[in-house]
Amino acid sequence: MPETPKPRSNLALRLLTAAVLVPLLLYSLLGGPLWLFPALTTLVCGLGAFELFTMTAPEHPLLRIWGVLATLLVLAPFSGLLPDSWLVPTVVVVVVGGLLLTLVQATPVETAGLRTGWVVGGPFYLGVLFGTIVRLFDHDHGGQWVVLLMLYSFGSDTAAYFVGRSLGKRKLYETVSPKKTVEGALGGLFGALVGGLVAHFWFLPSLALGHAVVLSIVAAAAGQAGDLCESLLKRSVGVKDSGKMLPGHGGILDRVDALLFSAAVIFVYQTVFGI
Amino acid sequence: MPETPKPRSNLALRLLTAAVLVPLLLYSLLGGPLWLFPALTTLVCGLGAFELFTMTAPEHPLLRIWGVLATLLVLAPFSGLLPDSWLVPTVVVVVVGGLLLTLVQATPVETAGLRTGWVVGGPFYLGVLFGTIVRLFDHDHGGQWVVLLMLYSFGSDTAAYFVGRSLGKRKLYETVSPKKTVEGALGGLFGALVGGLVAHFWFLPSLALGHAVVLSIVAAAAGQAGDLCESLLKRSVGVKDSGKMLPGHGGILDRVDALLFSAAVIFVYQTVFGI
Repeated sequence: MPETPKPRSNLALRLLTAAVLVPLLLYSLLGGPLWLFPALTTLVCGLGAFELFTMTAPEHPLLRIWGVLATLLVLAPFSGLLPDSWLVPTVVVVVVGGLLLTLVQATPVETAGLRTGWVVGGPFYLGVLFGTIVRLFDHDHGGQWVVLLMLYSFGSDTAAYFVGRSLGKRKLYETVSPKKTVEGALGGLFGALVGGLVAHFWFLPSLALGHAVVLSIVAAAAGQAGDLCESLLKRSVGVKDSGKMLPGHGGILDRVDALLFSAAVIFVYQTVFGI
Repeated sequence: MPETPKPRSNLALRLLTAAVLVPLLLYSLLGGPLWLFPALTTLVCGLGAFELFTMTAPEHPLLRIWGVLATLLVLAPFSGLLPDSWLVPTVVVVVVGGLLLTLVQATPVETAGLRTGWVVGGPFYLGVLFGTIVRLFDHDHGGQWVVLLMLYSFGSDTAAYFVGRSLGKRKLYETVSPKKTVEGALGGLFGALVGGLVAHFWFLPSLALGHAVVLSIVAAAAGQAGDLCESLLKRSVGVKDSGKMLPGHGGILDRVDALLFSAAVIFVYQTVFGI
């Protein structure tokens, strides 16, 4: 980053960005045409893939382009945007194509193991997990389920921030993310729980109270772990933010890393309990 | 390796191993019960995954165990051994579970990027590509198609070895695999072509001559590239053989790396041309 913005102007920028994106998102979920939310998800997924491959293959532009394409190729059948019959052949092409492409520019050999792992793993990390978000949207009351997901993310982040700042003492996992505290993490779970209760009592009554409590805590815990996973990757490759596409928020991946894991947990929970 | 065996005894051991495994393989393909070949493929896939995760997470036993399990979880629906409806939830669990597990032992942080990439990518690299082998077997004349795949591997390796040894001058890709030559690679394509012609004229007449010629060359070229991909990974992580499970042959992955790519190409070719 060329310069570090002052905290206050950063917060203003952050709120301004949110003020533009949140209404668009809510419109796409609750009132817009049915193609709008999947289209926005596809866009965000592609931008996130660009960030991921910029981190894992910084000197390999061809791999970055392929990484975005391959991620969208995984997203399309996994999200249900393409028929299931496309899934197996598409995935075979993604695996083989990516590995072949690592040979085009094999140097530096020392980091080739990282690149080959991510050229296969990256499209599945993002394509599959963004795919679960689209599948949530396609579920009964799908728009409301995705709003719940957003509430988990927002409630968890906000509560974790304020609780961590005022009460945070014990480090959560210093090796991976030095600033996070146990108190902040617990606050985050509480924030998500509030989101789940709001959903149950207000806009998603089909989510029973017991499910609302259990799911909120599990989804938020997975989200926090997902955040740590991305922090571990960033520390390992030596970057601080995944990117700077969202003014005031850092990168796309920084914003969605927790949300992706929460979405996956909601999807699996729906599948297991048939709700 | 504790000691390097002499070339002659190594060749004898190599032939002895082949003398045990090849008849078992042919029996499973052409005469045995229908479950035998998928079962053998599953076993080999699991052993290959163990080698892969031993290379990419050498100090992380938990990740190695997970890697094998996750690879089999990907193999099962991708090979058709589990119903298609299992595919999406299973894959979500593989992606999220693997990434969460990288947090259990996050150190050394420097190599965490490699581990997180492979914990997602590895199960798809092996699970999807071994899955295509089972799908070849499930195709019409499936046993014969897999015999053709073996002929590609055997013909290509043998011809590449002898042509490379006698005529090899120009290096194929020295950065990745210093011993391979362009002449050997061309010999390998020729060897696979012979295999394809044997299939067309002898045991797989449904493979038309034109398809036999094109497919043989493309599948063998992909196989050679697949071999280079694994060589690149091995060089990058600093190992010489993927393992030593097959007496005289080195590791499982060393033996199947080319075959996996050829299988994927045959599968895609079958899908695209409807043969």
